[in-house]
Amino acid sequence: MGTLIKNGTIVTATEHYQADLLIEGEAIRSIGKGIAEGTHRIFDAGGKFILPGGIDGHTHFNAPNGNTVTKGFDSTVAALMGGTTSIVDFTHQPKGLSLLDSIIKHREEAEGKSVVDFGLHAMVTDVQDSIFEELPALTKAGVPTIKAFMAYKGTPLYSDDATIFRMLQKAREAGMLMMVHAENGDVIQVLQQQLIAQGKTAPESHVLSRPSFVEAEATPRAIQLAKGADAPVFIVHVSCGEALIAIREARAAAFPAFGETCPHYLCLDAKNLWKPDFQGAKYVCSPPLRDAADQEQLWKALQNGWLQVVGSDHCGLDYSGQKEMGRHDFTKIPNGLPGIEDRLAILYSEGVLKGRLSMERMVDVFATAPSKFYGMYPKKGTLLPGAEADLVIFDPDYRATISVKTSHQDVDYNIYEGFEQRGRPDKVFLRGQLVVSGGSFTGSKGQGRYIPREPYGSAYQGS
Amino acid sequence: MGTLIKNGTIVTATEHYQADLLIEGEAIRSIGKGIAEGTHRIFDAGGKFILPGGIDGHTHFNAPNGNTVTKGFDSTVAALMGGTTSIVDFTHQPKGLSLLDSIIKHREEAEGKSVVDFGLHAMVTDVQDSIFEELPALTKAGVPTIKAFMAYKGTPLYSDDATIFRMLQKAREAGMLMMVHAENGDVIQVLQQQLIAQGKTAPESHVLSRPSFVEAEATPRAIQLAKGADAPVFIVHVSCGEALIAIREARAAAFPAFGETCPHYLCLDAKNLWKPDFQGAKYVCSPPLRDAADQEQLWKALQNGWLQVVGSDHCGLDYSGQKEMGRHDFTKIPNGLPGIEDRLAILYSEGVLKGRLSMERMVDVFATAPSKFYGMYPKKGTLLPGAEADLVIFDPDYRATISVKTSHQDVDYNIYEGFEQRGRPDKVFLRGQLVVSGGSFTGSKGQGRYIPREPYGSAYQGS
Amino acid sequence: MGTLIKNGTIVTATEHYQADLLIEGEAIRSIGKGIAEGTHRIFDAGGKFILPGGIDGHTHFNAPNGNTVTKGFDSTVAALMGGTTSIVDFTHQPKGLSLLDSIIKHREEAEGKSVVDFGLHAMVTDVQDSIFEELPALTKAGVPTIKAFMAYKGTPLYSDDATIFRMLQKAREAGMLMMVHAENGDVIQVLQQQLIAQGKTAPESHVLSRPSFVEAEATPRAIQLAKGADAPVFIVHVSCGEALIAIREARAAAFPAFGETCPHYLCLDAKNLWKPDFQGAKYVCSPPLRDAADQEQLWKALQNGWLQVVGSDHCGLDYSGQKEMGRHDFTKIPNGLPGIEDRLAILYSEGVLKGRLSMERMVDVFATAPSKFYGMYPKKGTLLPGAEADLVIFDPDYRATISVKTSHQDVDYNIYEGFEQRGRPDKVFLRGQLVVSGGSFTGSKGQGRYIPREPYGSAYQGS
Amino acid sequence: MGTLIKNGTIVTATEHYQADLLIEGEAIRSIGKGIAEGTHRIFDAGGKFILPGGIDGHTHFNAPNGNTVTKGFDSTVAALMGGTTSIVDFTHQPKGLSLLDSIIKHREEAEGKSVVDFGLHAMVTDVQDSIFEELPALTKAGVPTIKAFMAYKGTPLYSDDATIFRMLQKAREAGMLMMVHAENGDVIQVLQQQLIAQGKTAPESHVLSRPSFVEAEATPRAIQLAKGADAPVFIVHVSCGEALIAIREARAAAFPAFGETCPHYLCLDAKNLWKPDFQGAKYVCSPPLRDAADQEQLWKALQNGWLQVVGSDHCGLDYSGQKEMGRHDFTKIPNGLPGIEDRLAILYSEGVLKGRLSMERMVDVFATAPSKFYGMYPKKGTLLPGAEADLVIFDPDYRATISVKTSHQDVDYNIYEGFEQRGRPDKVFLRGQLVVSGGSFTGSKGQGRYIPREPYGSAYQGS
Repeated sequence: MGTLIKNGTIVTATEHYQADLLIEGEAIRSIGKGIAEGTHRIFDAGGKFILPGGIDGHTHFNAPNGNTVTKGFDSTVAALMGGTTSIVDFTHQPKGLSLLDSIIKHREEAEGKSVVDFGLHAMVTDVQDSIFEELPALTKAGVPTIKAFMAYKGTPLYSDDATIFRMLQKAREAGMLMMVHAENGDVIQVLQQQLIAQGKTAPESHVLSRPSFVEAEATPRAIQLAKGADAPVFIVHVSCGEALIAIREARAAAFPAFGETCPHYLCLDAKNLWKPDFQGAKYVCSPPLRDAADQEQLWKALQNGWLQVVGSDHCGLDYSGQKEMGRHDFTKIPNGLPGIEDRLAILYSEGVLKGRLSMERMVDVFATAPSKFYGMYPKKGTLLPGAEADLVIFDPDYRATISVKTSHQDVDYNIYEGFEQRGRPDKVFLRGQLVVSGGSFTGSKGQGRYIPREPYGSAYQGS
Repeated sequence: MGTLIKNGTIVTATEHYQADLLIEGEAIRSIGKGIAEGTHRIFDAGGKFILPGGIDGHTHFNAPNGNTVTKGFDSTVAALMGGTTSIVDFTHQPKGLSLLDSIIKHREEAEGKSVVDFGLHAMVTDVQDSIFEELPALTKAGVPTIKAFMAYKGTPLYSDDATIFRMLQKAREAGMLMMVHAENGDVIQVLQQQLIAQGKTAPESHVLSRPSFVEAEATPRAIQLAKGADAPVFIVHVSCGEALIAIREARAAAFPAFGETCPHYLCLDAKNLWKPDFQGAKYVCSPPLRDAADQEQLWKALQNGWLQVVGSDHCGLDYSGQKEMGRHDFTKIPNGLPGIEDRLAILYSEGVLKGRLSMERMVDVFATAPSKFYGMYPKKGTLLPGAEADLVIFDPDYRATISVKTSHQDVDYNIYEGFEQRGRPDKVFLRGQLVVSGGSFTGSKGQGRYIPREPYGSAYQGS
Repeated sequence: MGTLIKNGTIVTATEHYQADLLIEGEAIRSIGKGIAEGTHRIFDAGGKFILPGGIDGHTHFNAPNGNTVTKGFDSTVAALMGGTTSIVDFTHQPKGLSLLDSIIKHREEAEGKSVVDFGLHAMVTDVQDSIFEELPALTKAGVPTIKAFMAYKGTPLYSDDATIFRMLQKAREAGMLMMVHAENGDVIQVLQQQLIAQGKTAPESHVLSRPSFVEAEATPRAIQLAKGADAPVFIVHVSCGEALIAIREARAAAFPAFGETCPHYLCLDAKNLWKPDFQGAKYVCSPPLRDAADQEQLWKALQNGWLQVVGSDHCGLDYSGQKEMGRHDFTKIPNGLPGIEDRLAILYSEGVLKGRLSMERMVDVFATAPSKFYGMYPKKGTLLPGAEADLVIFDPDYRATISVKTSHQDVDYNIYEGFEQRGRPDKVFLRGQLVVSGGSFTGSKGQGRYIPREPYGSAYQGS
Repeated sequence: MGTLIKNGTIVTATEHYQADLLIEGEAIRSIGKGIAEGTHRIFDAGGKFILPGGIDGHTHFNAPNGNTVTKGFDSTVAALMGGTTSIVDFTHQPKGLSLLDSIIKHREEAEGKSVVDFGLHAMVTDVQDSIFEELPALTKAGVPTIKAFMAYKGTPLYSDDATIFRMLQKAREAGMLMMVHAENGDVIQVLQQQLIAQGKTAPESHVLSRPSFVEAEATPRAIQLAKGADAPVFIVHVSCGEALIAIREARAAAFPAFGETCPHYLCLDAKNLWKPDFQGAKYVCSPPLRDAADQEQLWKALQNGWLQVVGSDHCGLDYSGQKEMGRHDFTKIPNGLPGIEDRLAILYSEGVLKGRLSMERMVDVFATAPSKFYGMYPKKGTLLPGAEADLVIFDPDYRATISVKTSHQDVDYNIYEGFEQRGRPDKVFLRGQLVVSGGSFTGSKGQGRYIPREPYGSAYQGS
């Protein structure tokens, strides 16, 4: 006896068609026309879309951030509400700890709390000679992805080119995918110091200290290092058109360089940082928000496949007590924006309905491509017989206005406050279980399961 | 009671996975794990691939060609043997006849003979003022595609830029896709005359009269005309890396210009034209065969999506009595190569097995993308519940050597003579009927059905 | 006994420096510090610039144009007033006449009238098979340059690609430079007919019938034809940034493609065509005027050497009785603008003084580069001992407002009416004779001499 | 009473013509036809070229290098023999010394020894916070150029991006030109350590540790930093085609980025490093020698103006006792090649005579452009009345074979040993004095004079 979803329009990364979908146990059993109802539990999805559950490969839960820590895995309920059934969370490496031990520690923080399935990315935040040798152990632990930062010079997060190059060499040997935060940390540090010295301490200085060229420089640099190491590379949170060019050109030369952008770069601009009364602090993230022209280039890049993934870069940080820490010094504002709940809403309302993105491309950047890049495919991120039954029944007729009042992110503001939202996940299934219904959480605390992931993801196949 | 194919690996344009597939009537009913056998006719596809039936959107059956005519639709049995279940054939417009009447006439030539389903492309071969007004009637007749030639100056095939530009304007209004043969007809005519004047009449002069630059010039010209008309454009049979650039750059600017290449450009080079004893005539096609370096660029373009489609450009022309017509004047050699039977064999043996193409990309360029571009999707070209049950059970373990002796093309030579073939369509289904089994035709003459196609194909969605 | 110009600042295409300059007979004798005054006639040029006399390689005197004829060589006095001492005039080829006979005829029209030295470009306006064989005779007659039109389809001016390609082949053999008017004549004709059919007959339709893409298409086409013929090519009157790209890229690939722009493209925009009461007709030229953004790209191209030459494309056509011929049909407005007198004024006032052009680049595009491209160097276009003493003493302190009232072009309007002019040629010398002084003509009618020019100009040296 | 050079062909950066040239005192007095002989000392230069004296803006005399020091300024006689009359020498900044004091110290080392006139570049080799404030004092001391190294990580030579960016900001304020050695020091250090760890200690490892991508990465990085600082930038010793692209593209975007290459990159390839018996050490320089394909791209870049300058990067280091220091560890081989004497010989014999470079371009890259970039123009580097009389009478008919036996570089080998040389400086004048005649030094020790240079050189004018 299974669960039968009837009459919906199934949307995959490349097709949409009407069919019934039968779930048995934790998996999709079959997809077909007029599947017999038998004794199955029936859901009628007429007039609705059936999407694979979203995969958000860029989240920061329970993460040290400046002198504070982001919200914990309890708040992953916001992910489910937004149609995201799996995340891959970045794992801070505490000083002196190995990468692997950091993973073990972070997994413990998530177990029993996360309501979505979760994988963990490794992340270099304490460069030691020993970490380069850990990569085989990481893949064995289901961690085939690792991020390093070209930014944040002067902090433990920073990796110099030598570190990134060596890591790329080792990643290639281990079938791991190297993810890079590409901004020139040297220049940022110089500009920050110059701005502070001039008494320019307000949030907008965050933008002034990170002009587009610092990203436009670092992005091709990361790609050149990858070429030198003959390794694929994945650029996280591409924010501007100028940085995009290097990725598009690498693809035109058939080199495996890929990139992600985030919903906030698609529909918020840098002017928000100039909001009075320190409200600009709510919009401090790195890279910073850019201009309207950049937004159009990013949408075009998603539609044409020059960028492959949309992740939220979710950081659960309150304004009160957290963002406020930088009131007298913009460099002290904890970086990062909340947004895991609204990723699909932005893609659909601002993308699909405004003609910038096809439904299929939306599904790809939201679920299928992250699954392939991060080594979870075909278990997750797609609607196929045999795949885990993570899926969303999406009601396109829903209307709302995005607001902190109706959010589940456990943060005291919403960056999209006032945006018109059309459509929402009416029902969400996680491994066959109905965990959201009519906009309410119907699952159980800690239901999320750790996802051991596979090496040699799609970046190694060149697409 | 249906047909159940069990245990195969289903391959689509983006995914491959193991599942059972149930056919009922002419359509796919469902795809799932462990579908109950019931009273269905069972085929075990364990160890085999299930592919959508191929769509060859570039064929010339029963087509006037110089002073001769190509083989007729009886010979479409070769298509089926090669895993192709549908074609879209180009429709010669006889002098004085309207485009629509030409379609009606050509459809009559195919009905009762073709063993594959067939659509018909319109083709401008007699430019008259009236033809521009015919486009709405063509789409009504299921013909949303039309080709014009920038080459063949001095013959009725030639269209000048004014004709192409006007046709693009009208095609846009009607939701049709304009297909262009992009070679500079003026330059070719000059070079042909100069070569003939110098007594250089042998087949290799065909190559010398059509250097790469004539295609590298005409391709961006066609795209600029399309931009001026704000219409999508599709470049047929791209043969060289230099021409490719314009298409890739148009995509990078998000303009809907697309392109096809052919199997012979992927694995045969121009040196064949220098074969002694007039054997070079067997390889005369336009654009001409190019160099090994071009082949690698074409493969890379297919894998990376800079070219979208592989069509055969099949012309059933015998060497004896047909190619021989140009023995004393290379310009009299009828242009075109036989190849409809070997399209999948080349893609699999030369592409997939040599690491140049993924299975998914192979399926896309062979079946799914042509279906989308030519307005047959989702009825054909994909494996989905509800789609017509055109499919191939592909046996990867088969071994053979390509030879005219085992071909079904009704032509007295095979351009791939001696190529190692690995894998073949073991069984082919056309709308649910088993029409090839174990390499033998099991269908019936004239079983092919006319395919009325839809306007506003995927070129209008920009992908 | 010579003429000694003391204390001036000599400006060449690459340098400026203070020195005295001694003329003897028709030539420059020496340049030095403190040349002894002896018995020479002395001019003090303190505070003034000494420039080589300008060479305007793009003029149309006494030229059939639609149903009228432009002003004759008497009006070359305007050239002298503007600092231009030599022209190369385009030679209309009357129907049935050979290129060479056309040159002979046109030379007769100029002799005894022109007050500037003059060369003649050949121009294909009646395509016949015989003209391709004339090129050696042309170079022998001192005519190493020939122009053809890709525009004006449906008129005798039009050359198809076959004609241009054959002409390029022959030009290469003869060391001639092929000049091309690069606009897609087919598209223009289609758009003209569509506009007329819609009753859009006013001057602004001239712009609408020639959108930028017709030039952006034809420019790389001309260059590809040149590549195919292995011949240099020179694109006349480049009007827009999009067309410019092809020339810049050809240079980046070290191919000898070069280009000219005109003063009106540098400072007048298309809005002028919308002037009421048919005043827009005064601004009808081909290619049409473009946008402000194009102007900035053209200035940048001149300064950076991506365009090499500024010619006036002077056409002496009155508004009254001539431009008026197209009052009811914009296609009947004779094409072309008067402007030979103001070329230097625009380059200096709009270019140098506004920081867009260095003095050296101004001299290069105004005099030296045309001399080199058109085969007159080092006799003309430069200030060297041994060169002909064509030179300008330029007073940078002069102030005026450009107006038809003070013009010498013998045309009833001035396209730059109201422009502020700073600086003017205070004195002009032609082969050592003072022919302009204080803004008045001091020479004699018909003083201009025919300039036999040399083949293999600088385009063959690749710069 | 002066010096009169008669009948020579004067070659400048843009022209060549026959004229007489009169020197009075230290300067050129006049250039003309048939200058009266009067009481002047007469030299007949019939059949010979007169070139401006060469300016070598990339030399290392008396320079610490690893654990040794290069040859001193006495050996500048080799420069004169090769037609170079001025150098700009790089000034090592000893640990703890200010930039200005380093200049004062290095000037003392040159005074009384150098036989060519000399300017001094500043060079950052001990990064301290105070040095950024020194730039106004440097320009006052006639030093408007400063170099920093992106390579040599782990040594005092290395500057990180922060240092380079800050220096660019300050250079812009002071009108200085920043010169950058663009190789990724991080990657080189990693590769060096890996090679040493693998026991690969021989000279060829020098090449393996510096693949082209380390230069292709660092070059656009330097340009992006310059863009961010809105300052011009000059890339020294560009060695490969891939690095070149960034400079060419910057120029195409009208950004003032410029570059130099060196004679050894134009005609020696990396295979020399594999010479047996440690002979490869003779060819160790950074960037390393590259491939033949790179050489052709560099020549093309010089001819087309994508690179602007050829400097020798002369390092007088003996094989014996100096290069030998790295016999057991390639990282200990002192970097740098001798070559100041052969710069003109290579440009003429390998460039002009092989059709890769025009005479005018040769003069520009050899003398005029360095003079303009480094702030010595128009005093030096050109042949104009008023300029200092530094010039070369070049005999094109001379024939020789380059050999250490006939060299004056005071080094025990010659990297061009065995190259055929055609032409040589028959006579060389330094500020009007004959200092080389018939290939023999006729000047006096220490005759060279310090050249105070001007800020805001030609890089600030964008050309």
